[in-house]
Amino acid sequence: MKKILVLHGPNLNLLGLREPEFYGHLTLEEINAQLSNLAKDLGAELMIFQSNSEGDLVTLIQEHFDSADAILINPAAYTHTSIAIRDAIAASSRPVVEVHLSNIHKREEFRHHSMTAAVCVGQISGFGLHSYLLGLRAAVEAAED
Amino acid sequence: MKKILVLHGPNLNLLGLREPEFYGHLTLEEINAQLSNLAKDLGAELMIFQSNSEGDLVTLIQEHFDSADAILINPAAYTHTSIAIRDAIAASSRPVVEVHLSNIHKREEFRHHSMTAAVCVGQISGFGLHSYLLGLRAAVEAAED
Amino acid sequence: MKKILVLHGPNLNLLGLREPEFYGHLTLEEINAQLSNLAKDLGAELMIFQSNSEGDLVTLIQEHFDSADAILINPAAYTHTSIAIRDAIAASSRPVVEVHLSNIHKREEFRHHSMTAAVCVGQISGFGLHSYLLGLRAAVEAAED
Amino acid sequence: MKKILVLHGPNLNLLGLREPEFYGHLTLEEINAQLSNLAKDLGAELMIFQSNSEGDLVTLIQEHFDSADAILINPAAYTHTSIAIRDAIAASSRPVVEVHLSNIHKREEFRHHSMTAAVCVGQISGFGLHSYLLGLRAAVEAAED
Amino acid sequence: MKKILVLHGPNLNLLGLREPEFYGHLTLEEINAQLSNLAKDLGAELMIFQSNSEGDLVTLIQEHFDSADAILINPAAYTHTSIAIRDAIAASSRPVVEVHLSNIHKREEFRHHSMTAAVCVGQISGFGLHSYLLGLRAAVEAAED
Amino acid sequence: MKKILVLHGPNLNLLGLREPEFYGHLTLEEINAQLSNLAKDLGAELMIFQSNSEGDLVTLIQEHFDSADAILINPAAYTHTSIAIRDAIAASSRPVVEVHLSNIHKREEFRHHSMTAAVCVGQISGFGLHSYLLGLRAAVEAAED
Amino acid sequence: MKKILVLHGPNLNLLGLREPEFYGHLTLEEINAQLSNLAKDLGAELMIFQSNSEGDLVTLIQEHFDSADAILINPAAYTHTSIAIRDAIAASSRPVVEVHLSNIHKREEFRHHSMTAAVCVGQISGFGLHSYLLGLRAAVEAAED
Amino acid sequence: MKKILVLHGPNLNLLGLREPEFYGHLTLEEINAQLSNLAKDLGAELMIFQSNSEGDLVTLIQEHFDSADAILINPAAYTHTSIAIRDAIAASSRPVVEVHLSNIHKREEFRHHSMTAAVCVGQISGFGLHSYLLGLRAAVEAAED
Amino acid sequence: MKKILVLHGPNLNLLGLREPEFYGHLTLEEINAQLSNLAKDLGAELMIFQSNSEGDLVTLIQEHFDSADAILINPAAYTHTSIAIRDAIAASSRPVVEVHLSNIHKREEFRHHSMTAAVCVGQISGFGLHSYLLGLRAAVEAAED
Amino acid sequence: MKKILVLHGPNLNLLGLREPEFYGHLTLEEINAQLSNLAKDLGAELMIFQSNSEGDLVTLIQEHFDSADAILINPAAYTHTSIAIRDAIAASSRPVVEVHLSNIHKREEFRHHSMTAAVCVGQISGFGLHSYLLGLRAAVEAAED
Amino acid sequence: MKKILVLHGPNLNLLGLREPEFYGHLTLEEINAQLSNLAKDLGAELMIFQSNSEGDLVTLIQEHFDSADAILINPAAYTHTSIAIRDAIAASSRPVVEVHLSNIHKREEFRHHSMTAAVCVGQISGFGLHSYLLGLRAAVEAAED
Amino acid sequence: MKKILVLHGPNLNLLGLREPEFYGHLTLEEINAQLSNLAKDLGAELMIFQSNSEGDLVTLIQEHFDSADAILINPAAYTHTSIAIRDAIAASSRPVVEVHLSNIHKREEFRHHSMTAAVCVGQISGFGLHSYLLGLRAAVEAAED
Repeated sequence: MKKILVLHGPNLNLLGLREPEFYGHLTLEEINAQLSNLAKDLGAELMIFQSNSEGDLVTLIQEHFDSADAILINPAAYTHTSIAIRDAIAASSRPVVEVHLSNIHKREEFRHHSMTAAVCVGQISGFGLHSYLLGLRAAVEAAED
Repeated sequence: MKKILVLHGPNLNLLGLREPEFYGHLTLEEINAQLSNLAKDLGAELMIFQSNSEGDLVTLIQEHFDSADAILINPAAYTHTSIAIRDAIAASSRPVVEVHLSNIHKREEFRHHSMTAAVCVGQISGFGLHSYLLGLRAAVEAAED
Repeated sequence: MKKILVLHGPNLNLLGLREPEFYGHLTLEEINAQLSNLAKDLGAELMIFQSNSEGDLVTLIQEHFDSADAILINPAAYTHTSIAIRDAIAASSRPVVEVHLSNIHKREEFRHHSMTAAVCVGQISGFGLHSYLLGLRAAVEAAED
Repeated sequence: MKKILVLHGPNLNLLGLREPEFYGHLTLEEINAQLSNLAKDLGAELMIFQSNSEGDLVTLIQEHFDSADAILINPAAYTHTSIAIRDAIAASSRPVVEVHLSNIHKREEFRHHSMTAAVCVGQISGFGLHSYLLGLRAAVEAAED
Repeated sequence: MKKILVLHGPNLNLLGLREPEFYGHLTLEEINAQLSNLAKDLGAELMIFQSNSEGDLVTLIQEHFDSADAILINPAAYTHTSIAIRDAIAASSRPVVEVHLSNIHKREEFRHHSMTAAVCVGQISGFGLHSYLLGLRAAVEAAED
Repeated sequence: MKKILVLHGPNLNLLGLREPEFYGHLTLEEINAQLSNLAKDLGAELMIFQSNSEGDLVTLIQEHFDSADAILINPAAYTHTSIAIRDAIAASSRPVVEVHLSNIHKREEFRHHSMTAAVCVGQISGFGLHSYLLGLRAAVEAAED
Repeated sequence: MKKILVLHGPNLNLLGLREPEFYGHLTLEEINAQLSNLAKDLGAELMIFQSNSEGDLVTLIQEHFDSADAILINPAAYTHTSIAIRDAIAASSRPVVEVHLSNIHKREEFRHHSMTAAVCVGQISGFGLHSYLLGLRAAVEAAED
Repeated sequence: MKKILVLHGPNLNLLGLREPEFYGHLTLEEINAQLSNLAKDLGAELMIFQSNSEGDLVTLIQEHFDSADAILINPAAYTHTSIAIRDAIAASSRPVVEVHLSNIHKREEFRHHSMTAAVCVGQISGFGLHSYLLGLRAAVEAAED
Repeated sequence: MKKILVLHGPNLNLLGLREPEFYGHLTLEEINAQLSNLAKDLGAELMIFQSNSEGDLVTLIQEHFDSADAILINPAAYTHTSIAIRDAIAASSRPVVEVHLSNIHKREEFRHHSMTAAVCVGQISGFGLHSYLLGLRAAVEAAED
Repeated sequence: MKKILVLHGPNLNLLGLREPEFYGHLTLEEINAQLSNLAKDLGAELMIFQSNSEGDLVTLIQEHFDSADAILINPAAYTHTSIAIRDAIAASSRPVVEVHLSNIHKREEFRHHSMTAAVCVGQISGFGLHSYLLGLRAAVEAAED
Repeated sequence: MKKILVLHGPNLNLLGLREPEFYGHLTLEEINAQLSNLAKDLGAELMIFQSNSEGDLVTLIQEHFDSADAILINPAAYTHTSIAIRDAIAASSRPVVEVHLSNIHKREEFRHHSMTAAVCVGQISGFGLHSYLLGLRAAVEAAED
Repeated sequence: MKKILVLHGPNLNLLGLREPEFYGHLTLEEINAQLSNLAKDLGAELMIFQSNSEGDLVTLIQEHFDSADAILINPAAYTHTSIAIRDAIAASSRPVVEVHLSNIHKREEFRHHSMTAAVCVGQISGFGLHSYLLGLRAAVEAAED
């Protein structure tokens, strides 16, 4: 049974409560519930965290270097600036899948570049909840390779 | 039962036969077989085409405006330059999912920008065969919305 | 009686069916009918083609080097990137009039530059069907000079 | 019978008398005569004004909001600087057609940008007298839409 | 009893009739009525003019050098380019208050800079009708200083 | 007997009444009287106009293409922005002398560049009334060449 | 006996008929005749195609992966923009020789960069007809290696 | 009777003898004669000096602080570099008029900037001999103010 | 019988012995033998030299100004820096063909620029031994023109 | 008893008489008197000169190479441009102290750089009269070293 | 017998006395003696001047326009800044040879540019006394051409 | 009797035979004859070499460290790139004189900088044959110091 670390970045705890035009109407809780259901189907176990702190996300990645078989991360606002999270991902020997609820290329210019994508296996963006579900499938597949 | 148009762009007919370091060892035929199996599971029907011609891809998109519920496309080399395919996608009222076998941001500079992604629902890149399979799931979901 | 080659570029066969906010409600067939009516009035004869293929457009220009007295062209998406169409126009000794249904300066940045305009007599943009009709008049006038 | 407001901007009263290398040999009177002849053919009625004054051009546009079915304007020198004319055009619910005798992109750098084109229906440039005649047709057509 | 010159620049006569998304639904007449009511409350007398002509606005400022105790002006489109209005304001020994209905910094780039603000007492922008009402209060206060 | 067109731009009617630190204490009337006296001495005839309107200045230049042997102009605020006045001067075949009461290089940055000087014979600035008187002499001399 | 695929890109069918200052006076037919004569001498068999279509050129390269021992290509206008032809060349395990009649570095800036040269065996430019003849020899030699 | 110090800078003693394409055909002697005639008419007395020395020009300015009512100076080559002459002019309470025979903005880049103009009353350039004669009038007038 | 000077630049004497991945396995001797055989076939006579010295290459070019009908040169490392060889080629009135064994555009950045190509007839690169053989043909053809 | 050469540059003879806002109200004579009093206290003897001529200042420095033990100089306007004074100072084997009454960095941009300071012992600026007095102390100290 | 004007710029009177590391040990007197001896040998007559004053150097050049057949000048410090000396040289129709005792390219950055060299025949620098002697020979040769 | 090494760099053996617009009509032989005649007069003995080889020029400088009393060199094309010749000159304890026939600052940009001048005694440029003759005198003088 593969263990997948699921990391939600800053402000994602507001999902479903704020700006549904960008992120849809599901709450983070509901997303996590759907991820958990899918994980059960895929025979995977999830460890889910949300943090608004760049440093905490770095630490969470580090603390699961051994215990997680793959990482599913939505770095949110830190996607575009965090060299610390990039370094943590690069230091991990686990496959990391980056997901975004909205299509980052359709938003403000400053959201177009990802600092973290280059050290991930791949990136999925624009499918709302399904970015997460597809990303979980990708992460489980990667963990099994 | 949702009908999904699957379009493979230029040179993808060579998959599995050429340059496996970029595209993996599966042939396009095998990819199509796996897509068909997954489609059966998802209760979808596939219409699959490959073309090396920008104009033909434009025409194929146009010819399925009514018959397809969603489009799954890997525009390959035309991803980076084709305004004509972009215009055809934009003219379609169907959801379009863009997929890439390899992570386009890890390759030559001229492959980093996508001319077509901005008019698609979303983009999935870097997961090899799974980019297609995840993309098919995303397309079926989008078709059902 | 002047002979005018009328060339419609990629996706223009969709006219009237898709994105009327950009291109109006007339179909290409109706535009052609109106062009033919006008041609009759102007004592001109039309040779009309639409193609989604850059290469076909190049070939059509070439094949009418002798038979056409002027060319009316809407290169559509190829306006902005095609060196091949530019070369074909430059190789022609006939006057070429470039038309656009929508105002290209009101749209995306990448549609502002025309690769072909520099080798044409002039440019008409933004009048929908009438860009064509006016362009036909301009082409007939140019053919008569 | 459609009523078309024809506005000639500053210094255009000099046409045919001064600097023919830029504007051709026809006088404004001759252009107006040809416009009137064409209007008769088109079943349109012209209201023709030339003004060297930015404010008068603004007022002329406003005063014909109801009486004119469309506007044909060559803003000449004000093309490049007049926000007031731009605002008047934008406030008008009538279609406005911008014309230029010469190709403005072939002259001094400060004449390359049009402040007004973005709020017009379309622009015709480079055809000399025919820019006006084609523009009148475009205006009449637009008035009839 | 203080006398206040109220000047409305080009196209403001169209207020309430055109483009309410920028300027609200009140007509200039209604704005003037509200200004007059407020003036009565403030013990001030208004002299109200609107002109589309840069030169006329210059002249109106000049003609009220003695009769007005303060000036309330919305230079509209001329705000951004008119050195002549700037010079007329600078030549006045009366306090001048510049107002704008909409927030000029939220609109097109070319509306961000004000040529006239530097020689006014102050600027109020973005409050619709209230820009005028607040401006009138500011003008009356300044007139009393 | 040479005929000289004398043109005073916007706000120059305020001369002697406002901002004497920039323009001196003489009124425009007095300047004109002095110009007339000098003209009599020089055997020249003056045609004098002041306007706050850019368009009127353009028209005045045009109306005197034949009747004036030379033009003496102080474009004031329009010096720095008017393409229309520049075009009118360029269209004239008469010598044009540009004068400024104050030294434009001692004032705000935006007054340092002249849009019109490049099409004039020469420029005199900084001598108050005498810029005009000297300019008249220069204009008469130029008219006689 | 080696089989060589000879591909002429867009507009090369015009050789000898148009713009001899760039391409010389020989027709494509004459070039092909000379290539055929040379092929006979070299004991090679030619398969010659000209196409104005990018997609057809891609397909022609693919269709001759097995039947052609080497490819001689003048991509003409597509040299500078076609990623699809580049990908087809890269996917081929056959040696590809790129030729240009004129020296591409002596023409417009946008013709200086070759998108395809980096994946070819080599490039020959500047020798007119002889660029082709030498290129054929290079291709035959490469086929024999 | 006003006393005017006339200062000719370096190399102006060569006028009429050398490089007439820049300075005209009149000699400095002839210019001085014309200046003297004009001075007589104006009821002024001239003190004329030419010097090639920056220091002498500074001293000449200082020595005439009391005896000269105004200064007419053509600083020639020192226009562009002399802070010492600038300081002497600034220290003078007499009006100083800067003149140039040719238009300094039409010559080498290093002659475009004037170090001295900012501390003069005004500048006259481009009228040849008349720059001096007009400058003398300006100086006499300034002396009388 | 045409005489061709063949010049091999620095380190080319190592051919076949070192870095075969760049230059192939043939020795310079073998290349020369093949060149000689081809020359015989072409009815040409070769004068072959190799030198590691920039100066010797210059001298060899000079010494054959009269005796050689054309020059075939691989300047090797000197391609990118030698002004002396460039000067010698420019001083020659004979056609010069530049060849490279490897494709210089696939190698280090500093090998992309050629100091000598601009004064040669044309350039052939990337075909190993055949760059020479093809170059010899090009040189013989050029000698015969 | 040390002998100090005191040099005042161009226009300093005007001190106290002109522009007190820059240089204070003391005359050069008064400054010299105060310098002489201080010199007496310090046991030094002064040789004081003022000149407006760059060349004379050079000569004065040269003439006191032997008789002066140190030099106190205010090069005034020549500070910023004179390589000749710099060379004279450098040629001296005596310590040279540069002083300025005003702070040169607070004045016009062109007064910020000193050409002479680099070859002086040190620079004192901004203390009015005290710049001189402190400079004299510094010069005497330096002379004694 | 050719007459040569020899001009020594500022500080050159110090030669042999100061900074021998730059200028050698000979005094200017000795240099002049040697120049005179050489002149005698060359059948030339010298007119020798030294001045620390820019203006004097200008005057000396002017005064010998007719009497000197060539000029030998070491402008020293004025080399780098004097537009006045440049203008005097340019106005001369005689050949002018610029010499420098030291190699100006080995010294401070601000000595690398010569304002005067562009209007001289040639330049000799770095040979101490011999720069002069060689320069005299060059001047005599130039005078004889 | 001083021994002078005379070194002519690459391509100088072509003097008088090729490109006289750059180098004049004298042959190197004639220059050498003139140098020899002058050497006889100067009581010097010349050792003259021309080489196209950078290495030979280095070696020639080295081999004459003891036997030559001075060196006269025209490094020609190597002037701009040769660090080896610069190092050889720097290693020599003999004076080295650099000469150029033409003014190197008037030719292509890449010929403006001298790599060798900074380690020579001095440089003479622009006097044609006389650059050499003057350089020989400089070298003999330097040898005698």
